Amino acid sequence: MPGAGRAAGVHGPRPQPPGEPLAQEDLLLAAAYVSDAQYNRNVPFETSPQAIRLYYFYNHWTMQAATYFFICVDLSLAMFEEPALFPLPFVATSIAEVLCLTAFFGRLVHFAKVTPQMVFWKDTKNICIMVTIVLTLVDLILYGSLGAVNIRSVRWSRALRPVFLINFPESRQIRRAFRSIRNTLPDILYVFLLFTFSMLVFSLMALKLFGDRGLKTAEGSPYFENILEVAFELYVLVTTANSPDVMMPAYDFNWWYSLYFITYIIINTYIFMSVFLAVVYNNYRKHLKNEIRKLAYLKRRKMIEAFNILKVKVGPEFVVGEARWRRLVRTVAPDMSHGHLELLLRISDEGQTGHVDKMNFLRLADLLNIQVVTINIKRHPLEAWVPRLYQSSASLLVQKVVRHRIFVWVFDVIILVNAIFIALDEKNPFISYAEWLFLSLYVIEILLKLYTYEPRAYFGRKQFWNWFDTLIIIAALVATVANATIQSARKYNSQQILDIVLILRILRLLRVIISVQRFRVIVTTLINIGPTMLTFGGLVFVVYYAFAIVGMEVFHGKVQFFDPNFTTPDALVCGNPALKGSAFSRGRYCKNNFNDLASSFVVLMELTVVNQWHVLADGFALVTHQAAKLYFILFHIVVVILIVNIFIAFILEAFFVAYSLEKSEVETAIEKKIQELGVGIQEEEVQDGKPTDHVDAKDAGDNKTKALEGLYCRIASKKYRTVDTLLQRMFESEIAPEDEGPSLDEILNFSPSDIYPKNPNFENSA
Amino acid sequence: MPGAGRAAGVHGPRPQPPGEPLAQEDLLLAAAYVSDAQYNRNVPFETSPQAIRLYYFYNHWTMQAATYFFICVDLSLAMFEEPALFPLPFVATSIAEVLCLTAFFGRLVHFAKVTPQMVFWKDTKNICIMVTIVLTLVDLILYGSLGAVNIRSVRWSRALRPVFLINFPESRQIRRAFRSIRNTLPDILYVFLLFTFSMLVFSLMALKLFGDRGLKTAEGSPYFENILEVAFELYVLVTTANSPDVMMPAYDFNWWYSLYFITYIIINTYIFMSVFLAVVYNNYRKHLKNEIRKLAYLKRRKMIEAFNILKVKVGPEFVVGEARWRRLVRTVAPDMSHGHLELLLRISDEGQTGHVDKMNFLRLADLLNIQVVTINIKRHPLEAWVPRLYQSSASLLVQKVVRHRIFVWVFDVIILVNAIFIALDEKNPFISYAEWLFLSLYVIEILLKLYTYEPRAYFGRKQFWNWFDTLIIIAALVATVANATIQSARKYNSQQILDIVLILRILRLLRVIISVQRFRVIVTTLINIGPTMLTFGGLVFVVYYAFAIVGMEVFHGKVQFFDPNFTTPDALVCGNPALKGSAFSRGRYCKNNFNDLASSFVVLMELTVVNQWHVLADGFALVTHQAAKLYFILFHIVVVILIVNIFIAFILEAFFVAYSLEKSEVETAIEKKIQELGVGIQEEEVQDGKPTDHVDAKDAGDNKTKALEGLYCRIASKKYRTVDTLLQRMFESEIAPEDEGPSLDEILNFSPSDIYPKNPNFENSA
Repeated sequence: MPGAGRAAGVHGPRPQPPGEPLAQEDLLLAAAYVSDAQYNRNVPFETSPQAIRLYYFYNHWTMQAATYFFICVDLSLAMFEEPALFPLPFVATSIAEVLCLTAFFGRLVHFAKVTPQMVFWKDTKNICIMVTIVLTLVDLILYGSLGAVNIRSVRWSRALRPVFLINFPESRQIRRAFRSIRNTLPDILYVFLLFTFSMLVFSLMALKLFGDRGLKTAEGSPYFENILEVAFELYVLVTTANSPDVMMPAYDFNWWYSLYFITYIIINTYIFMSVFLAVVYNNYRKHLKNEIRKLAYLKRRKMIEAFNILKVKVGPEFVVGEARWRRLVRTVAPDMSHGHLELLLRISDEGQTGHVDKMNFLRLADLLNIQVVTINIKRHPLEAWVPRLYQSSASLLVQKVVRHRIFVWVFDVIILVNAIFIALDEKNPFISYAEWLFLSLYVIEILLKLYTYEPRAYFGRKQFWNWFDTLIIIAALVATVANATIQSARKYNSQQILDIVLILRILRLLRVIISVQRFRVIVTTLINIGPTMLTFGGLVFVVYYAFAIVGMEVFHGKVQFFDPNFTTPDALVCGNPALKGSAFSRGRYCKNNFNDLASSFVVLMELTVVNQWHVLADGFALVTHQAAKLYFILFHIVVVILIVNIFIAFILEAFFVAYSLEKSEVETAIEKKIQELGVGIQEEEVQDGKPTDHVDAKDAGDNKTKALEGLYCRIASKKYRTVDTLLQRMFESEIAPEDEGPSLDEILNFSPSDIYPKNPNFENSA
Repeated sequence: MPGAGRAAGVHGPRPQPPGEPLAQEDLLLAAAYVSDAQYNRNVPFETSPQAIRLYYFYNHWTMQAATYFFICVDLSLAMFEEPALFPLPFVATSIAEVLCLTAFFGRLVHFAKVTPQMVFWKDTKNICIMVTIVLTLVDLILYGSLGAVNIRSVRWSRALRPVFLINFPESRQIRRAFRSIRNTLPDILYVFLLFTFSMLVFSLMALKLFGDRGLKTAEGSPYFENILEVAFELYVLVTTANSPDVMMPAYDFNWWYSLYFITYIIINTYIFMSVFLAVVYNNYRKHLKNEIRKLAYLKRRKMIEAFNILKVKVGPEFVVGEARWRRLVRTVAPDMSHGHLELLLRISDEGQTGHVDKMNFLRLADLLNIQVVTINIKRHPLEAWVPRLYQSSASLLVQKVVRHRIFVWVFDVIILVNAIFIALDEKNPFISYAEWLFLSLYVIEILLKLYTYEPRAYFGRKQFWNWFDTLIIIAALVATVANATIQSARKYNSQQILDIVLILRILRLLRVIISVQRFRVIVTTLINIGPTMLTFGGLVFVVYYAFAIVGMEVFHGKVQFFDPNFTTPDALVCGNPALKGSAFSRGRYCKNNFNDLASSFVVLMELTVVNQWHVLADGFALVTHQAAKLYFILFHIVVVILIVNIFIAFILEAFFVAYSLEKSEVETAIEKKIQELGVGIQEEEVQDGKPTDHVDAKDAGDNKTKALEGLYCRIASKKYRTVDTLLQRMFESEIAPEDEGPSLDEILNFSPSDIYPKNPNFENSA
């Protein structure tokens, strides 16, 4: 590691003479490094005291929230502009847009003050934002002035709005997903070309084989008579959307022709589509690991920077004194509880030497990321208030029953019976009464559980399933009461409220999941990968938004929706005679239009699901031009072939990582320490609600725990694991503690431009 | 490794006193072990000389071919039995079936003679075959006697026929695929239950939300009014086959309801289906590795057995003498060339000590599996005959042109122009003449290449792309000539011949693939994994066959196909009034029926592609009973959720292994040796056709190569790599050469019953 020695020396930005009090600005600088390492932020900032203060302000949650607020406002403008759900005059939306642009520009200026000039101007993200701001302003002025002389032009800059969502440093995850796509493109391109080539060869064959037979489709139109049409039909067949219809005329003519289609489907649908998935997945894995590795090294470097600022020489080695360490952690995490801080100190300063050595200091960022729940375990309140009653044999019997497995099973059966009752007609008064019976049973169950288990433990911050259970029952209770009130009053009758009430009542069936251990495991895994799935939500949203804006400009108003009860000829062809006799109008797809943002999103969702997408494409091609099909084909390639495959790749990887890594390195260390200090409790014990006995036994006579008395800790981070953090820890556990990592230049050579091109701090220290 | 020492001792079945001549039966036994190791056969055989001779006979290719022949006959009987493509009387088919059963029984008896009795009766495969034979006989007798008194019964035993294909030891690959499925079942079951549960909760919601609104579908039928119907529609929605139609009535009513469907699709289609893939893939990988590991250990054990039979003590260690080694290899591979054998000996006996040590002996099975092509390189025949002309400057210029890149590009352009001409109307005489021009250009190209490159090198056994190119041109030539002849004669006018001619002419466009390096890589990878893909073909065939037989029994004759030009009311409803107004008859799906085996297979293929499967299911439910939908749902679960996902898992894994492993351990060793001996030529050199110079230079003055003079070797196994062999080598490279592996008991404990339960040889040696 050529760069290993450079930063480890005494040439920190402001080397501290040993024992000298720490200047506030140095503390802030070190805290900024630690905080960046904790949250994996890779913003290169100036190290002048003023810039650091600005940097703190830049990272403050209010500033970030404000940025997101303006991004939301900017994106939601599409709902108020023509074609609009809720139309507003152009002046209103343009003022709102200019406001947003000002906010974005302000944020950018703030960033420019924080980061070194060189870095700022080399970063494509900043350039992107500036160019988009300028283009949007130009578009606004053009559109406004053309509108003033009554020329309707196109608000093309609206498709650029997602740029703001992608390019602010906070949307790291979405950017990474885009990078995944970009990295995959070269590899996928050749497969795609070969696939296109194969499709064209098959098209040529189809044209020659079937073109001059005079066959007709089921709708009576000519079959495979034009090479472009054939190619489109065969592309649709790859997506399986027109199978088997596209085959039927040829198959009816001679059954040998089915072999042509079967060969085509095997090669193009099964093999090529699997190869696409394989290529996307392979690239995803490769680049994910590269990025994670880079992140891990950057984190290590930042921690070393922080260490170099704070270190003092004690004996032969450099360490960080306890007081400085405390000040640092207080600065990084101001709202950390005293017990938590002491626990971290115990873990970092194992020998209680009064200072933290380098190796332990470097772990701090990970330790801060682990959520430790401090539990103050007490006896059941009833036991404290009425001990004799609570400990009476009848009461103990009740508690025993509630804790028993059969208790759970009985309630599962009750839920299933309830499901059958819901399925039956509720107008029957007997069933309507039964509803109340079920609800009271559920409430009794919750009360019994609260009687048996300590309520504060039962509703602990991380007792997900208990919360889930209780909330469902409360929702069902509210829903049933609301339902009864509405039915008896018969005045207020909002459809939405009734529907929500109905859904809440049915959702209580989900309680069955809690009883089956394997179901809980699956659901927990899905919930764990939920946050990263939201990244894909963001990615899909960005692509949808751009396509929706384009779609609205091109297809707006071409297809009209009429009330389904209208059967006028106009309503049957969606208000456009060009659709007469088309599959689009026959399928009553009139509501699938681009007349406003919400409708466009629903259409794009339907296109993502793929089925019948060719009917939509044909319909919109009929009302505009055949070239409009390109819009739909492009959407299919981008969303289904790229994004959906990346989504599947992500789910596959997430599952494997979740399967293969049960506990990560750092967590095991912290758990061991907690157990050692005698303040740990097993998760199972908490669920039983009776952990006191076990812990008390361990607790007694242990000198070390004095400072931590009355505090019990539990690692709660299991629910906060993402594929990223898992992979990062996997990789970090492979870095030797002495290894200071490669220099920044080397880090940046892992894979082409990922993080900020130059981090001045690393240069300073070199 | 507790069992490691047991077999390594001197207690082989027939320990040889050192130096004593090798008995023929011992040689045969050792050769049987080596051969089993080479082909990964795991048949436990008796070690008596008689049993070994029977075992050789059992493994002989004629016996295997005969078995497959009878399996084919048995399976193809379905084409001649009612409902038949080519009906034959019951007597004829039943005699054929009894013949096949006799053959199967004979094969089983042969196997019983080879294998120890205990093993034979414990093997479920043998029991399966016997039970199936008995059941088939019972069915035949029952059906025949009932038929004699004119009662038509069901030939249910026909669905059991694939049992023979699966259960003979030769179909190891298909069995493994079935094991993959079986192993995945427990894990997938819980996900499936949760998925079903989620579907039912959504069904209940849909029933309550939409059931009493009086909505109508586009076809005017009631919408979501019956819980079973709702559940079926929602299951179909998971397969995306009825999207967006199923949503439209609710969406038309109120656009908020689209959120219900979007939520449903995200949860059930995207997340659950990805989880299915993840679970299947994860299990596939896990079990594949277990099986491969077991195979690797078994192979090692067999080689140790063979070594123990052949070994003699030389100095401190046991070795196998050169003479014995030669006899062994001659027995195992009788048609190996002398040069190849000498090469293997050189590799095995590196020090030329006259004997092969244990470590090198154990590699023999792998060495035998590597295909070494021996090439006798000679000068171009023309160079020998007319050296002055061939070496003239004009001739050299021609050769230089042909070798140049631009030569390839020019012909790529010609092919593309040709494609455009094909796409144009060929009735135009000018275009028809152009066709001849293109063909002559292609022929000239081939001739020029043969002039430039040495013909025997150009058409080397493994020069896949040269063969491909030439065959395509010859086919196109034949096709064009045939086309012209037919057109001028105008007498013979078979549609099939014309179609094939047409396809051959278009296939020449595939030559473009050769020019693009990346295309060749992709195609080569696909061809490499081709053999294993055929396993999936077998798997799918077995499932299709069973479903087709059941389908023919249930749906036979219910749907009739009429000529598409008939428009009588009867023809429009496929001859069944129950189909009136159904989507089935509107889509003209009449030919999608179960009236014979071929049609059934086409229908099942359409069901595999998924789209419109609900229309087929509805159609067949209308002509029989609503319960018939269960047949289609079951098919979807088995084929699409299980088999297609395993297929995708296999392709993913194959791609990763192919990417990550460029050269395997053993191959590198053999290649190194070939280079060392100076008889190797690089693949690129052969393709250039001029390898002589390079090799000559190396060759000169090397004593070792004397015996191999005139022989040049090239590893050709790259094209024979399967995921299995790759994985096996990956794992084997991890086993230390000294490691004799765990004992058989341990091997069998790797994963539940995979290979034969007990291998007596391993017990003997213990």
